[in-house]
Amino acid sequence: MPEPACQRLSIRTQGAGFYEITRSIIPMLEGTGVLTLFIRHTSASLLIQENADPDVQTDLMGFLTRLAPHADHPQMNWLTHRIEGPDDMPAHIKAALLPTSLQIPVIDGRMLLGRWQGIYLVEHRDAPHAREVVVMLR
Amino acid sequence: MPEPACQRLSIRTQGAGFYEITRSIIPMLEGTGVLTLFIRHTSASLLIQENADPDVQTDLMGFLTRLAPHADHPQMNWLTHRIEGPDDMPAHIKAALLPTSLQIPVIDGRMLLGRWQGIYLVEHRDAPHAREVVVMLR
Amino acid sequence: MPEPACQRLSIRTQGAGFYEITRSIIPMLEGTGVLTLFIRHTSASLLIQENADPDVQTDLMGFLTRLAPHADHPQMNWLTHRIEGPDDMPAHIKAALLPTSLQIPVIDGRMLLGRWQGIYLVEHRDAPHAREVVVMLR
Repeated sequence: MPEPACQRLSIRTQGAGFYEITRSIIPMLEGTGVLTLFIRHTSASLLIQENADPDVQTDLMGFLTRLAPHADHPQMNWLTHRIEGPDDMPAHIKAALLPTSLQIPVIDGRMLLGRWQGIYLVEHRDAPHAREVVVMLR
Repeated sequence: MPEPACQRLSIRTQGAGFYEITRSIIPMLEGTGVLTLFIRHTSASLLIQENADPDVQTDLMGFLTRLAPHADHPQMNWLTHRIEGPDDMPAHIKAALLPTSLQIPVIDGRMLLGRWQGIYLVEHRDAPHAREVVVMLR
Repeated sequence: MPEPACQRLSIRTQGAGFYEITRSIIPMLEGTGVLTLFIRHTSASLLIQENADPDVQTDLMGFLTRLAPHADHPQMNWLTHRIEGPDDMPAHIKAALLPTSLQIPVIDGRMLLGRWQGIYLVEHRDAPHAREVVVMLR
């Protein structure tokens, strides 16, 4: 059976926040090359960040929320895209600032992540969403 | 004739804003791999964002302008790099926050973009510029 | 001797700032493909930026410091992750906003950088650190 050109990872999110996917990626990897992870959405992101103290994730979410609050916050009264809810346009802003794709070197099926690096899907929307990530090693 | 290792896309911009390039990329793609788009400038960016409501692009520009206003805005009175005009240093700031390159999985010549994802060149300078993007599928 | 699948670049930093690595990368490149640079840390970044006027780097650092000041600044009194020093959580924030990896097209051992583009390691921590970058051409 030929090796598939790419694989898919599905993640169900339950509100804005960090969802670690490092362990879901590991069994998908064989051989050597550059791993590309690509998220097929414009209101969620992929991010490599510290995996030790969960407070880091809390503070990153706090920073993003202060930088781009919901559309009903006075700081955002200039927003025009409002039809999909007060969390939608800020979600696009955060998705513009954080990565849509990640690239990680892989040797013999092992990602060369640093000791404190974990791979996260960052959900920017409040409601539950089904997110899809394309996984490709070349 | 051997397949060229890479192709170039030229875009003429007319001031700061979003310029969609999705349809210019499609005919350049053959085969399977990871597509890399690379912009050869430090005051313009590449970005994958929502392609449905143009208000999203307007609001993203609004956000970036508020985050890093022109050098003659009181909020930016601390800037030292001013010799290339009031829009230049803010353009470098925006170019640092948005991607210089994009990576998109391609199967049989088709990009695996999500339904709402479009590919944009984001111009940060006010005057018209000739921008060049390198297109490489590996 | 077979070509190694990847190489490593070690950089010793002496406080927050830009460290140019363009010239260290050049002799590592042979052949044609996409170069991936990957930093194995969550409080330092890789960035392509202007290499002409050093004021640009000073202003980029100034912007990042204003966007995410140290934890002992009143603007950051909401931070919870404080055990690793006042510069640590802001370093994670900056590392979330700037790239962990770069991709650059290479033809016959030559990077297709634009005329004004240099490659930088951006250190976000105050104390000296030993940083490691993985270099892979595929």
